[in-house]
Order: sequence, then C-alpha cells, then structure tokens
Amino acid sequence: MGKYQVDLKDIQFNLFDVLQVQRLPQFGLNENDYRGILEEYNKFVENEIFPSREASDAEGVKMVDGQVKVPKVLHGVQKAFHENGWFALGFPAEMGGTPVPEALYTTCMSLATGANCAWMMYPGLSRAAMNVLRLKGNDFMKNVIVPKMMSGEWGGTMCLTEAGAGSDVGALKSTAKPIADGKYAIKGSKIFISSGESDLYQNNIHLVLARTPGGAEGTKGISLFVVPRFKISADGANAGSNNVQCSKIEHKMGIHASATCEMQFGQTGETEGWLIGDEFEGMSTMFIMMNEARLYCGIQGESQGNLAYLMANKYVGERVQFGKELVHHPDIRRNLLRMRAMSRGMRALCMYTADLFDKVHETGDHKYEGLIGLLTPICKAYCSEQGFQVGVEALQAHGGYGYCSEYGIEQFVRDTKIATIYEGTNGIQAIDFVMRKILKDGGKAISALSAEIIASVTSLDDATFKKEKDLFGKVLMSAQATMQHISGLAQKNQFNLVLQHCTDFLQFASQMVVAWRLMESAKIAQKKLAGASGDEKKYLESKIVDFKTYCGHYLVHNLSIAKTITDFGDDVSMLEL
Amino acid sequence: MGKYQVDLKDIQFNLFDVLQVQRLPQFGLNENDYRGILEEYNKFVENEIFPSREASDAEGVKMVDGQVKVPKVLHGVQKAFHENGWFALGFPAEMGGTPVPEALYTTCMSLATGANCAWMMYPGLSRAAMNVLRLKGNDFMKNVIVPKMMSGEWGGTMCLTEAGAGSDVGALKSTAKPIADGKYAIKGSKIFISSGESDLYQNNIHLVLARTPGGAEGTKGISLFVVPRFKISADGANAGSNNVQCSKIEHKMGIHASATCEMQFGQTGETEGWLIGDEFEGMSTMFIMMNEARLYCGIQGESQGNLAYLMANKYVGERVQFGKELVHHPDIRRNLLRMRAMSRGMRALCMYTADLFDKVHETGDHKYEGLIGLLTPICKAYCSEQGFQVGVEALQAHGGYGYCSEYGIEQFVRDTKIATIYEGTNGIQAIDFVMRKILKDGGKAISALSAEIIASVTSLDDATFKKEKDLFGKVLMSAQATMQHISGLAQKNQFNLVLQHCTDFLQFASQMVVAWRLMESAKIAQKKLAGASGDEKKYLESKIVDFKTYCGHYLVHNLSIAKTITDFGDDVSMLEL
Repeated sequence: MGKYQVDLKDIQFNLFDVLQVQRLPQFGLNENDYRGILEEYNKFVENEIFPSREASDAEGVKMVDGQVKVPKVLHGVQKAFHENGWFALGFPAEMGGTPVPEALYTTCMSLATGANCAWMMYPGLSRAAMNVLRLKGNDFMKNVIVPKMMSGEWGGTMCLTEAGAGSDVGALKSTAKPIADGKYAIKGSKIFISSGESDLYQNNIHLVLARTPGGAEGTKGISLFVVPRFKISADGANAGSNNVQCSKIEHKMGIHASATCEMQFGQTGETEGWLIGDEFEGMSTMFIMMNEARLYCGIQGESQGNLAYLMANKYVGERVQFGKELVHHPDIRRNLLRMRAMSRGMRALCMYTADLFDKVHETGDHKYEGLIGLLTPICKAYCSEQGFQVGVEALQAHGGYGYCSEYGIEQFVRDTKIATIYEGTNGIQAIDFVMRKILKDGGKAISALSAEIIASVTSLDDATFKKEKDLFGKVLMSAQATMQHISGLAQKNQFNLVLQHCTDFLQFASQMVVAWRLMESAKIAQKKLAGASGDEKKYLESKIVDFKTYCGHYLVHNLSIAKTITDFGDDVSMLEL
Repeated sequence: MGKYQVDLKDIQFNLFDVLQVQRLPQFGLNENDYRGILEEYNKFVENEIFPSREASDAEGVKMVDGQVKVPKVLHGVQKAFHENGWFALGFPAEMGGTPVPEALYTTCMSLATGANCAWMMYPGLSRAAMNVLRLKGNDFMKNVIVPKMMSGEWGGTMCLTEAGAGSDVGALKSTAKPIADGKYAIKGSKIFISSGESDLYQNNIHLVLARTPGGAEGTKGISLFVVPRFKISADGANAGSNNVQCSKIEHKMGIHASATCEMQFGQTGETEGWLIGDEFEGMSTMFIMMNEARLYCGIQGESQGNLAYLMANKYVGERVQFGKELVHHPDIRRNLLRMRAMSRGMRALCMYTADLFDKVHETGDHKYEGLIGLLTPICKAYCSEQGFQVGVEALQAHGGYGYCSEYGIEQFVRDTKIATIYEGTNGIQAIDFVMRKILKDGGKAISALSAEIIASVTSLDDATFKKEKDLFGKVLMSAQATMQHISGLAQKNQFNLVLQHCTDFLQFASQMVVAWRLMESAKIAQKKLAGASGDEKKYLESKIVDFKTYCGHYLVHNLSIAKTITDFGDDVSMLEL
C-alpha cells in the first residue's frame, strides 16, 4: 500500500490567500478555526478513510442472499464519519450541521474522496438528496426523512437512468400513478443506481424520476418522487417492505466498493412514493441534485488526481535508478511538474467555484450564479478527464509497480474513469456548455468571465512572465475568433457544426480558466515571495512554476485546438464512417 | 460480451495497395494465397481466440499448490493455435514454419493480439525467445530446444528485471558461475517475468541476464543464459528439477490471463544454464528479443485500439438516444472519426515497419535497418499510448455500459496500459529515440526519412488536400526548427535540456510519421476512386477522411508541441518540485 500524502500548504494558500474565506462573517470563525477544522479532517482522512481504500476495492460489493453487502471495512469508516461530525460539515446549523465556507467544505470532501472515492459516494449522494429534500420537500420530508439521513441511519440515491434512457433521460418509462393520501404508486426499472441498496443504511431514500398519467413525452412530462426502500410511518419508523428491490449489482472497472444497482420499483407489489415539488417539474428539481453531483464529479477527478500525483512524487523521490532518484531524471521530473501543475490547477478551479456559492449570498449578485452555471460543465468534464489522465501518469511514474496493485496506484485509473461518464457524459457537458451556458445565455456569463481574465492578464508582470503573457494574449485572441466562429454557425442554424465543436471548445475554455486561476495564484505568490524564506519560499516559487508549466504544456495547445475548430471544420455528418 | 469485429478491407488495402507484399518473390505465393491466409487466420481469431478474451480475464492466473495455472479456456486455444499451424506462420521453412511477408505475419498476429492480448503473450514471448536461440544459439539450442518450442510443448520468457533494476538493467545482481560441461550455475531473483511459469507448457525456457565472475558493473558485464525450468537431457527429455521457482504471481490492473511471475533461480539448489553467444554480450543479444518485443508492444496498442474502435463503432450504430443512433450525433461521430483515423494510422505504421524487414532482405540496403531502428521507439511508445487512449474513448462511447464488464470494453483500457511500461517504459523509448536513434546516429536515419516525407507532401494534390498540405508544410518547418534546437543543446552539452524534451519530440515525430502513412494511403485511395463504386468507393473515401481527420485533430498539435520544446524550455532540474 502506498502512503497517504497531502498538500495542506496548497489548500491553505487557496483558502486564505487566494479566496480569503476568512472574509466571510456569517460563520463566526476565524482563519485559525478553519485551519484547525482542515487539519482535524485531514487526520481523519489519513487514519480512517485512506486505509480502507485498497481493502474495500479488493473486497468489493457483494450480493449475499439477495442483500447488497458493502466491504466490511466501510462500516467502521461510515460510523466514525458520522460520529465525528464530519458528515455534518457544511450543512446549516438549523439541521444540526456545522456551517463553514463552501470552499473549505469542498476541499475537506475532496480529501475524503481522494482517499476512498467509492466509499465517499454513499455520504456524497445522501447529502445531495438531502439538499433536494430540504429545499423542495414538504414538512414530512424535512422533519422526518432528512434527520434520519443526517444521523446516517438512512442514505439517499438519485434514480434517473433506465436501460433505454441514458443521456436521453426524457425517454424514461417509469410511471407514477396517484393513489390515496397524496401518495403515488411507482413502477419501473432503473439501472446504474449508485448506493441503490447497501447494508450501510437501514433504509434507502430514492429520488426517482417517473411520468404521471397524462405527462407529456420527453423531459417535460417527468416528475420527481421520494421512494423509500422500506415504508415509513408518520413518526419515522420502518413500516415494512415498499416493494423496492435491487435485482443486480454491476461488475465494473473500478469503484468496486460502491454498489451500482439495477433497481426494481413496484414489480412485486405496490411501491409508494411522494411527489417532491410540483408535478412535471421533476427535471428542474432533480437538477438541484444533478448540479451538485456534476461539481462532485469534478472533485472526484481533482481529488484523486492530486493524491495520485503526490504518491507518485513520493515514489520518484525514493526510487533510485541509474545512480540517482527518479525525480532527478529530466524526463521524469518534467512529468511530475506537469502532473502537479494540472492537479493544483484543478484544485484552484474547484475551490474557486465552490467559493462562488458564498459570493452569491455575500453580494446577491446574479452574475455569480451565471458563473457557477458556466463553470459546472468545466469542473465536471475537465477535472474528471484530467484527473483520470494524472492517474494514468502516476501509474506510469511507478513503472511496473504502478501496473500491479502493490502501491494502490492503478486503482486511481480504474476509479476516476467513471466520473467522465455519469451525471451526464463529458460529451453532454460540452453540449450543455456551448448550447445552454453560452448560446442560450446570450454569451452574458462568458463575456463577464472573459473580461475578468483579460484584466487579469493585462496586469501580469512583464518581467517574470513574458512568455506566458504573450501566450495568453494569443489564446485570448483565438478565444474570441473561435467564439465568433461558433456563434456564426449558430446564427446560420448550422447546429450540426456547432455540436461537433463542443468538446474541443469546452477543452479550450477549461484550459483558459485553469490557466487563469493558476495565474492568480502565481501573482499572489510573487508578491509574498519578497518576505519569504525556507519552505514557505520554496512553496511560493512552486506556484510560479505551476503557472509556467501549465502554460507551456497545456495552455499552449489551445492554439491548435482553436485551429481544429476554425480551420478543419468539415461537417462530420457528411464524412464517411 | 461484445461481438468480434474486423476491418479486413483496411488490412488488405495496406497489404496489397500500399505495401504491395505480392511483389516479394521468395515466398512463392500470390495475392490470392495471402488473402486466403488472412481470412483463415481471421476465422480462427473470431471463433477460437476472441471468445476466450473476457472469460480468461475474469478467471485470471492462479497459484494452486505452488503451481501456476492459467485460465482453463486457454488450454484449448493454445492447442488449436499450434495444431492449426498458426504458431508456425512467419517462421522459416527449415524450422517447419510457413514463411510469409512480414507485414502479413504482423497483421495476423495483430488480430490475435487484439482478440486476447493476455493469451497472445505466451506464444509471442516464445517466438521472440526462439528467434534469439536460432540466431545466436548453439546446435543443442537450435536442434533440441527450438523444435520443442515450435511444437508448443515448451515456452519461452525473457528475464531482465530485478527489484532494484527496472529501467536500469545494468544494476542487476543475478550471477552466473561456470561449472562443468560449459554450464553455468545461475543464482538470483527476477520480477515481472511474463509467462514465467504456467501449465500451458511442459517446460519453460528462460533467457536470463546475469553477471559472470569478473563481469564489469553496469550493462557491459552482463551475459545471457538459457535456463530451463526442468533440466534437459541430450535428447531433449525432461531430466528433473532445475531449481527454478515462481515465488509469486502479481495482481495486476489487466492482462489477468498472463502469468506475471517473480522467479527464483538457484535458491533451493543449483540452477543450470548455458551461455548464449559470447560472454559480456548479453545486452546486445537480448536486444534481438527486446526489439521484437518493443515492436510487439506497439502491436498490442494498435491491435486493441483497432478492435476497441470497431466495437464502439458497432455500438454507436445500434444504440438509439434522442430518436437516432448515437453515430448520428455530431459529437459522437467526431469521436468515432478520430478513433478510426488514429487506429488505422497505427495499423499503417506497424505494417509499414514490418515490411521494412522484407525490404532489408530485398535490397540489402542498410538504410532500411536504420529506419527500423528509428521507427521501433515510435511504434512502441506511440502505439501503446494511443492504443490505450482509443480504448479509453471506446469505453466512453459505450457510456455506463462501457464502464461495466458487459461489453468487454473496459478490459481494453486495463489490458493496453501495460504496453506503455514494459520492454522499456515510453520515457525510455523517447530517450532511445533522441539520444541513440537521432543524435548518436548523426541524424542519418531521420534525415533520410524526412526527405521521403517532404517529397511525399510535395506531390500531394493541392485541390483535395489544400488545408492538409499547408499544415504539413508548417509541421515540416517546425520539425526542422525543433530538431535544430535539440541538436544545438546537444552540441553545447546541455543534455539535461535534451532529455526533458525527448517525450515531446517523440510524440512530434510519431505524429508526423503516422500522418505521412495516412497520406500515402489517401493518395492511393484518391487514384483508385475514379473507377470505384459501392462499398469499395465508400471505403476509399473513408481513407481520405482518415487523413484529413488525423491532420485536423492530431497533426495540428505538432505546432504547439514544437512551441513547448522551443519556447518553454526552462531547465526542469532548476524548477522547484
């Protein structure tokens, strides 16, 4: 087993120097308090969560006598996570939570996710389901169901996908028919349901998309229901089977400790559910959970990328070949620098995005909501893809040992891959980014963001960052040209051409945003360098290196991505395949 | 389980239109004969090998009572492969082989490898070991050992790596002491030995690198030995234990059906071995096998990439979402076109390289040997890396189903990854490419290749390929600039800087070469299009699309890779990590 690694310095730099979360008065806590929370959380991750990672992967989820059993080691982790109050972190105080800045909550959850992504999906999905219930649920849901989830007795899921309805959610066939007492009878089959059933919880609270009688075809006719595995009495007691079964668990490439279930509702008798929010508003309500889950996919890539990088860095610092540690071989050192720049770039992006939620409350300015919408597909797609690629590089840095299970490195490759697929494939993210977040938005959010990036580049120090400033200038010009090209196609209703460029354009935009976040860090580091010494100085210098490395190895490719969009735009639907 | 797919049209186009293997008189066969061999081999792959792929991955290799057992299904495959004469394909007639053009042999082996890479490593390694024995072995090895391997009774391995000696082979500690009858006593431990032991063979013939008394440190003092698992009498009978044990089998990310063994020599008693070739020439002799294995790593990527692409293409042609097959969604179609261009590009490269072996015999011109040396790291590193990436894309195209084991797609990702590591990591390939194949060679081979590519681009049709010709012109100019930059650094003895650019430069060169091979195909296709109709016409059009797609999506990135080398060349050893 590899040894747990963490880069607390970089997390703290993001929290206190870049985002300055200590500015937020509503939490009643100061920088030292936040440092304490982060350090304690990290201890829990190192001592309780990380040791379960490889063991739970090796054991996997099993179906025993028709019941879904998670790896044994997870029961202890789960219990301790709730008992130590870490599940409550980031929830409002009135629910029994410990409110903290969103960026702090996100970075804590990132540490836990990196240390055992498959396990973290149980509390992660529970939390996202709870957020739907507390925002859109009725009193029963808020006062009876949510507290049971808060305590960890019950767990939540999201049930969208069906065999014929994957990306095309609107094609789903599950039905909901009104019965007595405002309840609905739910009938249908769902597939790929994470945490669909498990012995971690006494009851599973499913958020199920289904069509009521008369519901229109497609997504417009869909409503969202709360469907418990076991019926619930008015006082919250278990009231017997609700005819919900897990009919199969999937064998997957990774996240072996996460139960991916095929679920049956109403096949062995009536399954009761309650409507959440209004009829036919299922998709928009589900998107509360979906957006949280998409940002969480980004965290899955970011967190595992960062941990994989740190473990690789540890390995190459110790392994001697040709008379010196691998890290002193230029080709290896280059790879490590690239991995660090990418990993820390993803962290800077995810933490920045998390902080925007606090900015919304702080300022009431809707522009931050637009920015969150714009950055959601970037976080989801770019971080899941690049987190996977950093995992691949970390495996490579370990050589033959990386391909074997010895250091737990190949598990990163297997575990990260799912994040590019679920909660809307990265292809769907690219389409959402271009079609909704840019074109449907009339370019408002991206223009505001671009203006901010341009201002930031303009004030970059010419002496230290000459090459980077020149490059960024070219990238900004090609951003404009590329955007105009795509808008032009849209204006001519050539949406086939727009659609085939979405993936490239999302990558272009993602790299521009990540480079910008690394640039902001580099600027701050440069200022602080004057008075720094020792480890602090080394760290600050590494932030300048990160920005330069990212520009020279990633941002530079934006110039050729732009060429692909503008110069090689044959309509793919006309090309022989 | 996904359904087996093959692109025989593209293989035949490469064989007969591009490479024109029917030109070679020495095999006494014509185009129809070759077509027949290919089709029969393919039937065997489809009916016997492919069905074993997922089953043998799921069962894996096991250690039972101290003996290494391969998945049951492989025994039948192995037996039939020898009985049907397919193992003999490509060997000289005097050994009982069926000599055919190297490109035909290679493409056949590629089909088998794509269909079950983990199994194909057993015959693949055996063959490579046999080639060392027949070229460098003594009469006993040639007349007693080799025939037993030819029949499939015995299997071969290569034993280089030790715990402290991975990339740094020269650090190995295994020893060989002369004993009676010209034999040596071999003592040491080797790790990561593919096919190290298995119940597929009655004896395992290990080619072991070890140091004789007085052998210098590093690679110069190393010699190569034949070390059988069981002693061999003069007439080839099994003469009892040779004290060779498999002490452990590795748990790996993929190639579960391939036995990756930790091997002990001389730990429980004397282990006998025979010197192959001369003392201290172990490394150069081993490189006969190593070069074959490196090209074979390329085939592992190429073959699995091609099969993964074809299976993804089948899937997206059938899976309906949003009212139409996935393939008619522009973003998906773009991805498939990219995958096809890359997969066929790798095939064109590997088959071209294979044909060079026949060119050497045909012309006696040493320039083809230089070209093989230059293309070996390209085939190894680029095809293993890109074959993996195509597998990743194929998984993505299958959505959630791709991440599950259902279609056997995620297995491609797990199985291909090893090829970027073993037989010299891709980092080692990049260093070999720049330091030995270019700088030490004085640029002879690369200059000859460049001249050929330039001539080829010059004669490209301006009307059909305007964008591609412009792009290729720019790439050739930046190739020259990049090469000059690197040579300049070498002349100034700044080898740290040279070394940190190797990976980028190898990718640059690889993409130029693959684009060139796709260009040659496109030119031929364009000529043939005039008289073509129906499926033939569609296929020929697809070859033009492949070249354009590869240029627009891959070759274009050479411009930014060159920028990384020439513009962002800070010495990484000076950068804070």
